[in-house]
Amino acid sequence: MNPKSFMRKTALLSAVALPFAASFALPGAALAEEPKLSKEAYESSKTLYFQRCAGCHGVLRKGATGKNLEPEATRKLGQERLEKIITLGTEGGMNNFDDIMTEQQIKDMATYIQLEAPKPPEMDITLMKDRMKVYVDPKDYPTKPLHGRNWENFFVVIERDAGKVAIVDGDKHEIVAHLDTGYAVHVIKGTEKSTMEGAAKDPGRFWYTMGRDGKLTKIDLWQTPDKMRVAEVQVAYDARDVAVSGDGKYIVGGGYWPPHFVIVDAETMEPKKVVSSRGVNVDGDYVEESRVAAIYAVPNTNDVLVSMKELGQMWQVNLDDVANLAITQMDTSKFLHDGFFDPTSQYFQIAANASNQMVVVDAKTAKHEATIDVGKLPHPGPGANWNDKECGPVGGTTHLGEGTVTVWGNDPKGHPDQAWKVCYTVETDGPGLFIRTHPKSKYVWADQTKHPDPEVQQSIQVISKDTREIVKTMQLTDKPGYAVVHSEFNADGSEVWVSIWNRSTSLEPNGEIVVFDAETLEEKTRIKGFFAPTGKFNVYNRAHHVT
Amino acid sequence: MNPKSFMRKTALLSAVALPFAASFALPGAALAEEPKLSKEAYESSKTLYFQRCAGCHGVLRKGATGKNLEPEATRKLGQERLEKIITLGTEGGMNNFDDIMTEQQIKDMATYIQLEAPKPPEMDITLMKDRMKVYVDPKDYPTKPLHGRNWENFFVVIERDAGKVAIVDGDKHEIVAHLDTGYAVHVIKGTEKSTMEGAAKDPGRFWYTMGRDGKLTKIDLWQTPDKMRVAEVQVAYDARDVAVSGDGKYIVGGGYWPPHFVIVDAETMEPKKVVSSRGVNVDGDYVEESRVAAIYAVPNTNDVLVSMKELGQMWQVNLDDVANLAITQMDTSKFLHDGFFDPTSQYFQIAANASNQMVVVDAKTAKHEATIDVGKLPHPGPGANWNDKECGPVGGTTHLGEGTVTVWGNDPKGHPDQAWKVCYTVETDGPGLFIRTHPKSKYVWADQTKHPDPEVQQSIQVISKDTREIVKTMQLTDKPGYAVVHSEFNADGSEVWVSIWNRSTSLEPNGEIVVFDAETLEEKTRIKGFFAPTGKFNVYNRAHHVT
Repeated sequence: MNPKSFMRKTALLSAVALPFAASFALPGAALAEEPKLSKEAYESSKTLYFQRCAGCHGVLRKGATGKNLEPEATRKLGQERLEKIITLGTEGGMNNFDDIMTEQQIKDMATYIQLEAPKPPEMDITLMKDRMKVYVDPKDYPTKPLHGRNWENFFVVIERDAGKVAIVDGDKHEIVAHLDTGYAVHVIKGTEKSTMEGAAKDPGRFWYTMGRDGKLTKIDLWQTPDKMRVAEVQVAYDARDVAVSGDGKYIVGGGYWPPHFVIVDAETMEPKKVVSSRGVNVDGDYVEESRVAAIYAVPNTNDVLVSMKELGQMWQVNLDDVANLAITQMDTSKFLHDGFFDPTSQYFQIAANASNQMVVVDAKTAKHEATIDVGKLPHPGPGANWNDKECGPVGGTTHLGEGTVTVWGNDPKGHPDQAWKVCYTVETDGPGLFIRTHPKSKYVWADQTKHPDPEVQQSIQVISKDTREIVKTMQLTDKPGYAVVHSEFNADGSEVWVSIWNRSTSLEPNGEIVVFDAETLEEKTRIKGFFAPTGKFNVYNRAHHVT
Repeated sequence: MNPKSFMRKTALLSAVALPFAASFALPGAALAEEPKLSKEAYESSKTLYFQRCAGCHGVLRKGATGKNLEPEATRKLGQERLEKIITLGTEGGMNNFDDIMTEQQIKDMATYIQLEAPKPPEMDITLMKDRMKVYVDPKDYPTKPLHGRNWENFFVVIERDAGKVAIVDGDKHEIVAHLDTGYAVHVIKGTEKSTMEGAAKDPGRFWYTMGRDGKLTKIDLWQTPDKMRVAEVQVAYDARDVAVSGDGKYIVGGGYWPPHFVIVDAETMEPKKVVSSRGVNVDGDYVEESRVAAIYAVPNTNDVLVSMKELGQMWQVNLDDVANLAITQMDTSKFLHDGFFDPTSQYFQIAANASNQMVVVDAKTAKHEATIDVGKLPHPGPGANWNDKECGPVGGTTHLGEGTVTVWGNDPKGHPDQAWKVCYTVETDGPGLFIRTHPKSKYVWADQTKHPDPEVQQSIQVISKDTREIVKTMQLTDKPGYAVVHSEFNADGSEVWVSIWNRSTSLEPNGEIVVFDAETLEEKTRIKGFFAPTGKFNVYNRAHHVT
């Protein structure tokens, strides 16, 4: 080939339209007037931003539940206005932070968010495997419970800021152990009763916690307290939820950052597969920080539902063959957060908080079933299902943005006219995080943890299923900086446990759980000595789908 | 709530390990000794890089078929060495570029690739919709062919650099039209014969081209030549492939950048859904520039196979319900490029070129079936299937990296011992791009387009199915800067068409197609007047799965 003959050089190709190459500018065009921050203040603000701000605004600050905080937006507001917002909060739902950040921390944060958001690193499967720790080898697991306690009525209690969970004997009202876990555990899931072949023989024996730092910890309730933590692995830098597959072989942990979910061997805790959640949302826009919120196993199947917060999609993932992974991506609404199954385990009801909706997907057909307009920022937590005299089977949610419990029909076969429509609402004293009931109970419990007034925040309210009205409001503490949060029934439904969360002294064991008689609504006892107790998970109820 | 009571400030939380916030450094730490380039040279290098380099090295320069060209790697080599590599190529498979780039262009490119790669923009569905153009409204489509020609023996011929396709009358050996399409169309797919309900009644009537610039063009072969281009839409800035769903309702276009695939209404060309292909590869590493290579409809189903080049995954996507999209992600090998079905349409055979493997997936079960070690950089293009006297049904591929045709058994039911094992290899004169045959033919045709010697590059070789030996080698031109590429049979299998690609004068109509008698291997005629003819698609053969 004679090079001389190729006289028509590449330049000619430019005659053809090439929108691609012409469409992106030189990188790194800096914004004018960059604010200054010492390296030390930058690093401490970065840490603080991650702890306190990233959950709502995102690590890349593109906004989600909270507003966009990229420099283009924040520099328009300026230092002074930003400091004021951080200090006092806004009417739009932003908390005040003057109670948990110093003046200097607020100043630095106002500057920090005017700088470009640093992009956190990826996490590959090799790094995850490096961070596996086995404390008890599976071959040394006991063949029967070693402590003589009624482990099926244990409660696993999140001790938020201490990075621990407490194991509590529900019969004896005694703390059995404080176990080291990831930081600020968001969710705990146990092995569940399942009709699947190969499913765990002892549902509720093994529990898996997901820390906000992405650390998954495996707990064996048959062990002696000193050995209950049997293994751990880190699968993300920022994370929220985990679920156990129906066949008991895998757990699935979801990352906020990196945006992905990880399929982990439930026995050994070895990460097996990482699936990115970066994607295109229901509006057709690419989302880099597409976070994985709630993850729930579909009972009696080998599917898990993985909620894609920013995408507004529910992904139903079948775990039968991880090397040929089947995923159905259901378009729903933004931003998906937390949800719960109906009593038949066919329908999953999940909050789309930015849309003020509850979204329902049919896990039998892997299709979007319905959308229900509810109040501002729904947040059901573990949720509540019960029977209403007029609407039949119903589900309910609390809201972060208003003091309302919204109740909708959830029985499309028996009550098609009421299904996925609001049946009634109950006005509560304030916005809350969690609602809960039990099939044997006449009542539904709702907290008001998001109300700024301490008296309301420190109270819990009880709604009658029969009259649909609030029948009791109980303030459980009056200590400043303490809040009341989250209720959970014991195994036989005779007790309700409510947390007193010592927010202001959260690294000291000043938290309590108040135990109520579920029938008389009278206080029975208080269990003391918790580090910032928040969510609680009764072994039997969670393992047997008592919703 | 009394702020004064919250005395234990957030600082205490730092006591808890937070690997996340501490793990990423300040952004923008610049590399020392940044080379300089004028803005004009930067922009023209960026365009040239996209045209000539990005295909192998990636727009983000992370490397794929070609090496990583990020500044950390390129600055180690330095200006002089880089210029030499671009000028002369390497033994590792890099082409020489002194024949199509000026000395100044090579100098600038060597500097350009030492600078940070600019990240191209995303493309949201709104922008795609803005770039839809309808030339003929679907309600005005003709109800019968308007030109009296035998359109089922048309050939659609890519005219690469001109951004056109030619429509050629296969009976009369006449060019019917040159239609404007995207730039350097990579692949063309037509509506296919299918047993699906609602499938196109006239398979092969509508064709869809995918340009390298992401422009999809819809062609109606029943129209008069001036109206054959009926609609277009842009779905990416850089793209390679497209497929039509079995029910004829959708086309699926794949992007190199942004890394995604787009489901488009096949009638109106309106984009309906974008699915990101960014993901985690088979090694467990996140890949941002995860490009979509070959896309093929699974015959007689509503599934398409989408190959994820860098991920090493085949995604089988079912198009029955786009709002609840079902995808099975099969782990295979890297980097997936081009492939073809076996004659039963159950098995898809695709090159994983960095692994020197052919990968087989079972489209009936959506599972990875087999991996076959072949030669260096396999590249079958449309591929070839035939019957071997010993191995039974076989498939074959050419290679970019060596002059070998590798042939493997592909009938696991009838010939389980031979299935997915190499049956035999044929040494050819040089590395090639395309292999092709026809059920009625005794021969398999292979090009040698990738060989640097003009005489070899300008020849095509014919292999006997019976003797497994090369029976004929034909040099079709001796013009400098002209290459011979790609063979395709006509509808009844009586002719073989081969392209003479006028690389050095590609914007002038100096290209030819040589028509051979498929039985005697004698030249019958030459069709002249093509702009850089490369790939050709016979309507009947492609629409009726004649492989």
